[in-house]
Amino acid sequence: MTIPAPLTGVVPPVCTPLAPDGEVDVPSLLSLVDHLLEAGVHGLFVLGTSSEAAYLTDGQRELVVRAVTGHVGGRLPVLAGVIDMTTPRVREHVRAVTAAGADAVVATAPFYTRTHPAEIARHYRLLSAAAEVPVIAYDLPSGVHTKLPAEVMLELAADGVLAGLKDSSGDLAAFRDVLRGLRAHPDLAGFSALTGSELLVDSALAAGAHGAVPGLANVDPEGYVRLYQLCQAGDWTAARAEQERLCGLFGMVKVGDPGRMGGSSAALGAFKAALYLRGVIACPVTAEPQVGLSEGEVGEVGEFLAGAGLL
Amino acid sequence: MTIPAPLTGVVPPVCTPLAPDGEVDVPSLLSLVDHLLEAGVHGLFVLGTSSEAAYLTDGQRELVVRAVTGHVGGRLPVLAGVIDMTTPRVREHVRAVTAAGADAVVATAPFYTRTHPAEIARHYRLLSAAAEVPVIAYDLPSGVHTKLPAEVMLELAADGVLAGLKDSSGDLAAFRDVLRGLRAHPDLAGFSALTGSELLVDSALAAGAHGAVPGLANVDPEGYVRLYQLCQAGDWTAARAEQERLCGLFGMVKVGDPGRMGGSSAALGAFKAALYLRGVIACPVTAEPQVGLSEGEVGEVGEFLAGAGLL
Amino acid sequence: MTIPAPLTGVVPPVCTPLAPDGEVDVPSLLSLVDHLLEAGVHGLFVLGTSSEAAYLTDGQRELVVRAVTGHVGGRLPVLAGVIDMTTPRVREHVRAVTAAGADAVVATAPFYTRTHPAEIARHYRLLSAAAEVPVIAYDLPSGVHTKLPAEVMLELAADGVLAGLKDSSGDLAAFRDVLRGLRAHPDLAGFSALTGSELLVDSALAAGAHGAVPGLANVDPEGYVRLYQLCQAGDWTAARAEQERLCGLFGMVKVGDPGRMGGSSAALGAFKAALYLRGVIACPVTAEPQVGLSEGEVGEVGEFLAGAGLL
Amino acid sequence: MTIPAPLTGVVPPVCTPLAPDGEVDVPSLLSLVDHLLEAGVHGLFVLGTSSEAAYLTDGQRELVVRAVTGHVGGRLPVLAGVIDMTTPRVREHVRAVTAAGADAVVATAPFYTRTHPAEIARHYRLLSAAAEVPVIAYDLPSGVHTKLPAEVMLELAADGVLAGLKDSSGDLAAFRDVLRGLRAHPDLAGFSALTGSELLVDSALAAGAHGAVPGLANVDPEGYVRLYQLCQAGDWTAARAEQERLCGLFGMVKVGDPGRMGGSSAALGAFKAALYLRGVIACPVTAEPQVGLSEGEVGEVGEFLAGAGLL
Repeated sequence: MTIPAPLTGVVPPVCTPLAPDGEVDVPSLLSLVDHLLEAGVHGLFVLGTSSEAAYLTDGQRELVVRAVTGHVGGRLPVLAGVIDMTTPRVREHVRAVTAAGADAVVATAPFYTRTHPAEIARHYRLLSAAAEVPVIAYDLPSGVHTKLPAEVMLELAADGVLAGLKDSSGDLAAFRDVLRGLRAHPDLAGFSALTGSELLVDSALAAGAHGAVPGLANVDPEGYVRLYQLCQAGDWTAARAEQERLCGLFGMVKVGDPGRMGGSSAALGAFKAALYLRGVIACPVTAEPQVGLSEGEVGEVGEFLAGAGLL
Repeated sequence: MTIPAPLTGVVPPVCTPLAPDGEVDVPSLLSLVDHLLEAGVHGLFVLGTSSEAAYLTDGQRELVVRAVTGHVGGRLPVLAGVIDMTTPRVREHVRAVTAAGADAVVATAPFYTRTHPAEIARHYRLLSAAAEVPVIAYDLPSGVHTKLPAEVMLELAADGVLAGLKDSSGDLAAFRDVLRGLRAHPDLAGFSALTGSELLVDSALAAGAHGAVPGLANVDPEGYVRLYQLCQAGDWTAARAEQERLCGLFGMVKVGDPGRMGGSSAALGAFKAALYLRGVIACPVTAEPQVGLSEGEVGEVGEFLAGAGLL
Repeated sequence: MTIPAPLTGVVPPVCTPLAPDGEVDVPSLLSLVDHLLEAGVHGLFVLGTSSEAAYLTDGQRELVVRAVTGHVGGRLPVLAGVIDMTTPRVREHVRAVTAAGADAVVATAPFYTRTHPAEIARHYRLLSAAAEVPVIAYDLPSGVHTKLPAEVMLELAADGVLAGLKDSSGDLAAFRDVLRGLRAHPDLAGFSALTGSELLVDSALAAGAHGAVPGLANVDPEGYVRLYQLCQAGDWTAARAEQERLCGLFGMVKVGDPGRMGGSSAALGAFKAALYLRGVIACPVTAEPQVGLSEGEVGEVGEFLAGAGLL
Repeated sequence: MTIPAPLTGVVPPVCTPLAPDGEVDVPSLLSLVDHLLEAGVHGLFVLGTSSEAAYLTDGQRELVVRAVTGHVGGRLPVLAGVIDMTTPRVREHVRAVTAAGADAVVATAPFYTRTHPAEIARHYRLLSAAAEVPVIAYDLPSGVHTKLPAEVMLELAADGVLAGLKDSSGDLAAFRDVLRGLRAHPDLAGFSALTGSELLVDSALAAGAHGAVPGLANVDPEGYVRLYQLCQAGDWTAARAEQERLCGLFGMVKVGDPGRMGGSSAALGAFKAALYLRGVIACPVTAEPQVGLSEGEVGEVGEFLAGAGLL
């Protein structure tokens, strides 16, 4: 399907449920997709950071896209991440996820190498030239260790190279530079500006973003849909209350002991534990070499769910 | 072939010559291998950072390993990088390069994700369990944004998980912690401690390293072999002079205009320009989305070569 | 005077006009204070980062506080920065600025040293115990290279150690953790949560901040007062337009050539050039070793002013 | 006295013993100086990072310089740190320590502000113009968050602005750029290149450094003097053994629990605990807001001393 221009609303980065042996648990994945669709989300983003794309083999990635697009059947746009280091490798992922049915691709700046704004621009130009679907830029300095410059984003938007931006930088001031720039050019009205910061959705929407891609929406999609609707209605007071409830729930990403595991293990482990506790997926295991939450930590995740009325 | 334990001497990270269309130029690659062998290097490391492994597709990676191991025919050990983000993806590369004939694999810590020493250890344990060849750790904080902790390296050496360490951190004090730890345990005498810092080879060998993996050895392999031999002979004064000559030559990595390109473009572009000017490879192009050196910049690379008596 | 609890509104970090010889230009300083007061600001913050406090000698710092508090005469609260590396040195500044008439002090975490949350807490507890005026924490990771943790801020608020927080981190999600925590404890209603991010004032006020400390308010205090009033009135659409006008004006901090000067030179140079062009101060010079804007760059600052209707 | 050009040998950064009330314990300070002189050190560096200069008030700093220079009475050169944020403030420290008898001053790049190589050069030029004693640059990226560029150091050496460099960056490759540059210009033969990396003294001397400024030399000055002499004699094997013994002793900086304190507390606390246990100073307390070592941690420091034959 053709994705809306701009894409609006809540587009969760879909977690990838795994079996104990590390393989993709397709029934759980489809159960999760149903859980999201029933909540009224507006699109799906597979193979993102919250999907553990960095941990999935090429075969697993293809399986995920094929399973989800097949199940969704065009009811919603399905975006797919193409997370890899540089243009030639990302281009192969673009080919693979497009063949598997993705409606758009989401690509970061080059990483592992030491890059430059001119190279970032070149990267997106080459990807766009090769892609049969729209290309959305993914700003994730915590993983990529480079910030996508606002002026590069606007230049690539103006040239029709990029169809959108998912901003997961946490730097709202910089994101607003993009939003202001878009508003100043009416011909860019179809460019999708999406925030990936689950804690700032109301702020970003108030500033002009079109939608949100919050990892926590796996756990509480109804909450994010409600938040989006309140923002759409201009009820900023109620939106703030809903956002703050979700901020509280997000505290679950800190239950994993930082002396024993990294931040990805803690956050992804908490999301999966929550989905498991809510009965959405069959097994909360995360991919190797991540460290799992302890039984006590899973219990703490449960308390966050209970506190938010989700258990 | 079985790699020596420890592996000693000069083990260049072999550049990957490309044709103008971005495909691997196999004849140039084999010409480069011959150029290195004739200089008397002690091993080869393909698919490292200087090999632009981050830019090569899986098919190109396999082609490189197969071509080089086939050409070398066991005359020298061939190590292969398995550069990717996490255990499941790296494991696939281990399988592929081993099938293509690599004698050992070289793996970084997880990247893109936010990792932890416990996860780094787990990563290597899982790789080692799955690999049929020795696993060498690759410490590259500039690309991976994590430093491999000395105590983790020593623990994994003691447990037989790791066969060696390539230290490209530039942090000689930390590398010496590993070297001291190895010397304190005679049963670890087979562990290979290699420096990847082309500017510190004499210092690292004096401190007890077994060998070096210098990117600049593509350009001047004779120089590094001579440097290694001087260090072996304990002639530290002559070694310092040779090292400093090589430091001067290394200045070529700064000719690329930092206002126009990133550090990888500048460094890899200079190495390839030098190999092209020396007649070793047919084309100096680097992989996308890197920015090429200008004609004037290539001329400056030539001046570095001339200054070092290499043209 | 006793500062309001909480302190609300616009509290500009007052620039420190200098004479060509580097000494404080007191008449220009008082002219600037009048310029701010006439615009209706709600407090003044002297010796902050925008005041070039890092460049002022102890004698100059005292002169600034004495001049401003004397001139203001209690019409408005005057906060004073006590920017220094560690507790014993900051404590001396607390004594000095309090003796010179400051109504509150604003202190960062320790810097230059490698610190820890426990030491940050201890730092503020010791400062508070020694201070006769309220202590406000100053979160400035770009200068201090440590982020003040939200949980430490809330703990120190609850214990009566801190009277407020000036957040200049740009990390709105983290600042909202503080705002949520304050709202959850009605006894903390007097704690002042102020944003120092000139580009996010509407977002921060919508999220519950009490006021703003924007460096750009030196140049356009009327704009920030208007923005504050629109936020107070809940007119978020008009607030966003005003905020975006100010974001555009803020572009002046980038006219300084980054090949020739650092970010502080460019930003502080632009603010002072703007004040000079607007006729508020007699000389736009910045403190050593900053590099001054060129004539052409000053001209570009003028264009920003003209574009915003301020010339 | 006039400092040697170049200054050679071991120049310990002298710890500043404090009384329980935080005031400088002058008798202990002089006892420490005697301890160092008896070991045969070649100069003293007061008010450095290991001296807790960042924690000392201006009055305490003056007291330290006056006490030490008075006690030394010209037997050895006494260098004094002038650690502060920017030129005007550092200039005041230059005046103060010179008046108190320092033979040279040691200054970092500007910090807290966002600086630039051109501003760093300007900073040193202004300091040098104002100073009556030689100015030595201090490269400490871990504190200052900027690396002194080799080319700026060489330019300032050539112009007679700087008399030396204390390199505490840990980046031996970059330091060697300076050493090579000095050797290429015979007229710079008087420039002092000193390493501040206690773990790399043999490597740095082998590469051409003139001396070392190791914090650990407070604890074991005999060891560093012996190490220097072995390097002078070209006995690199014995030098390496001595260096490695000192590396082992340096392990004491990690006994402080990182969950409870920062790196400065742990390192300075260990040095002072060792001096206390060796009977050199009366009290191991560190300045506020540092966290002290526990009794058990002090015991571990003792084990390091015992292991090195120093108890």
